[in-house]
Amino acid sequence: MSDILQSFREYRSRMNQKLMETDNKVIKRIMNLDTNTYKEGALDERTKEMLGLVASMVLRCDDCISYHLEQCHQLGISNEEMYEIFSVANLVGGTIVIPHTRRALEYWEALNKEKG
Amino acid sequence: MSDILQSFREYRSRMNQKLMETDNKVIKRIMNLDTNTYKEGALDERTKEMLGLVASMVLRCDDCISYHLEQCHQLGISNEEMYEIFSVANLVGGTIVIPHTRRALEYWEALNKEKG
Amino acid sequence: MSDILQSFREYRSRMNQKLMETDNKVIKRIMNLDTNTYKEGALDERTKEMLGLVASMVLRCDDCISYHLEQCHQLGISNEEMYEIFSVANLVGGTIVIPHTRRALEYWEALNKEKG
Amino acid sequence: MSDILQSFREYRSRMNQKLMETDNKVIKRIMNLDTNTYKEGALDERTKEMLGLVASMVLRCDDCISYHLEQCHQLGISNEEMYEIFSVANLVGGTIVIPHTRRALEYWEALNKEKG
Amino acid sequence: MSDILQSFREYRSRMNQKLMETDNKVIKRIMNLDTNTYKEGALDERTKEMLGLVASMVLRCDDCISYHLEQCHQLGISNEEMYEIFSVANLVGGTIVIPHTRRALEYWEALNKEKG
Amino acid sequence: MSDILQSFREYRSRMNQKLMETDNKVIKRIMNLDTNTYKEGALDERTKEMLGLVASMVLRCDDCISYHLEQCHQLGISNEEMYEIFSVANLVGGTIVIPHTRRALEYWEALNKEKG
Repeated sequence: MSDILQSFREYRSRMNQKLMETDNKVIKRIMNLDTNTYKEGALDERTKEMLGLVASMVLRCDDCISYHLEQCHQLGISNEEMYEIFSVANLVGGTIVIPHTRRALEYWEALNKEKG
Repeated sequence: MSDILQSFREYRSRMNQKLMETDNKVIKRIMNLDTNTYKEGALDERTKEMLGLVASMVLRCDDCISYHLEQCHQLGISNEEMYEIFSVANLVGGTIVIPHTRRALEYWEALNKEKG
Repeated sequence: MSDILQSFREYRSRMNQKLMETDNKVIKRIMNLDTNTYKEGALDERTKEMLGLVASMVLRCDDCISYHLEQCHQLGISNEEMYEIFSVANLVGGTIVIPHTRRALEYWEALNKEKG
Repeated sequence: MSDILQSFREYRSRMNQKLMETDNKVIKRIMNLDTNTYKEGALDERTKEMLGLVASMVLRCDDCISYHLEQCHQLGISNEEMYEIFSVANLVGGTIVIPHTRRALEYWEALNKEKG
Repeated sequence: MSDILQSFREYRSRMNQKLMETDNKVIKRIMNLDTNTYKEGALDERTKEMLGLVASMVLRCDDCISYHLEQCHQLGISNEEMYEIFSVANLVGGTIVIPHTRRALEYWEALNKEKG
Repeated sequence: MSDILQSFREYRSRMNQKLMETDNKVIKRIMNLDTNTYKEGALDERTKEMLGLVASMVLRCDDCISYHLEQCHQLGISNEEMYEIFSVANLVGGTIVIPHTRRALEYWEALNKEKG
């Protein structure tokens, strides 16, 4: 498994576990909401994950981007679709999004490689 | 026509005209890109406008929100779909997005009313 | 009642009602969390409202600021305490917070006047 | 005098006065620094005001933009120079800066008109 | 000493020293203000450090978070109080604050461990 | 060559190449605009690079900062001028810009050293 995939997944999973163990009710509810919001509803999961990704990109949160890239990859979003999400993020958010797009592309290619 | 629809459209159109008249090449190219990015490609226009909307919401740009609400409305996005876009924006961007969601909902209802 | 107090309260209350009526589960949960988070716990309500206020100031959300100013005022926070919250927000967030501080001070003085 | 010039100047001046009257030492120092930072040093005033303007634009603070537009206008910055500042801000900050650029252009034109 | 504590403290201290050596008056005044603002006044130091922390969290500045976590820890803020600060930051700032909260929790636990 | 210079330049160059290879028209146009915007026009290159730098600093994009530091260095901007750009960024953007200024200063000193 690629190093960037493994280190992101391992750290996120370990620390999310610790966040749940704080037993703070608000934090736990936000983390539960974070899962439920992307479930199929009037919009399908694919669209919702794309929305989560573009929002994370313009807000320039690398870890949030990695997480939604994983979800989008599992839901079968194609390279061409992904590059169009990148293009909206860079247009709306400006060139300060480019460095995050470089890292997003690297992560996306690692996901493509992992799947083989 | 609703006041909030009319005043937004009139001001945006008048000042965009003036921005083009500055004859600054970079500004003109950005404004052209702003139109082209949302054209159908690997993703359809509906999805792209939803992406533009959620990005505008988390970045809390009321005028950008109004513009993408107009596009989404013309493309036939339903109330339930719209509320799910709102929900992703509020989850990712936090409660500071709520005041913008209040104004977005008001604008959306004005668009519904206008269509009759 | 001051115009700025009345117009904020009336619009917020009317549109929050409409947001609840969308019947979107995520939106409703976020709005409920927004109330519960500031309830007394390990930290008292005063401290939590001050935290909500300073967060709103550095994120430059005028309506969020007005809301937390109302709560802080009801909880008896003094002028001197309020100005120190303003000072932290302006130091951490920079001079772009000054225009929001001008409006916050205007709102705060309207609350002082209303109380008489 | 144009309404947008007058209302900005009058409100800013009145509320800055009130901010100084809070007698909070940190707030007063920040406001003093805000004046001193733009004084000529290794960089001339023109360059510094341009820096203050572009920073205000990408951070999307309309009142900060208006203030630096006033300073730039007094220092004789030309229309073409101003449009290039706008172009950098829109490139770096993305299309969410466009609505602020519309308002900036309106304010700039009011300043041009006032000067006659 | 934990690696994350040591590397943050060492880098911050070394580079702050270099920032002071630039001998730029504005930078030096801002750094002095940064110390003075959190001194006891109408609000006590504990409250002010909590305000600084929540502001740093919603603005998603990891190094600023680490610094205020250090101060909060020295002032005896409890785990339960800390988790409530985290909860306000995540509510107001949204799920993009979660990755920063993961790192904040890791830093906080390192501080707890160091104290023994 | 300093490690921080080399690793930034190598990664940026390699991933920009990959971004161009996505063959997404919008991304390519934004990247081309990113080069053209800073070309001499009504404002000279020095001023434009300073504008790009201060915008990157207040938006707290470390990689964007490194890039514009490189450009400013090549254009002969002096240490004293650079520190004044830092001072504007920290004043406008607040103390959350300090950690980025620490890294900017480290990068700047590496550039000075490289030139010898």
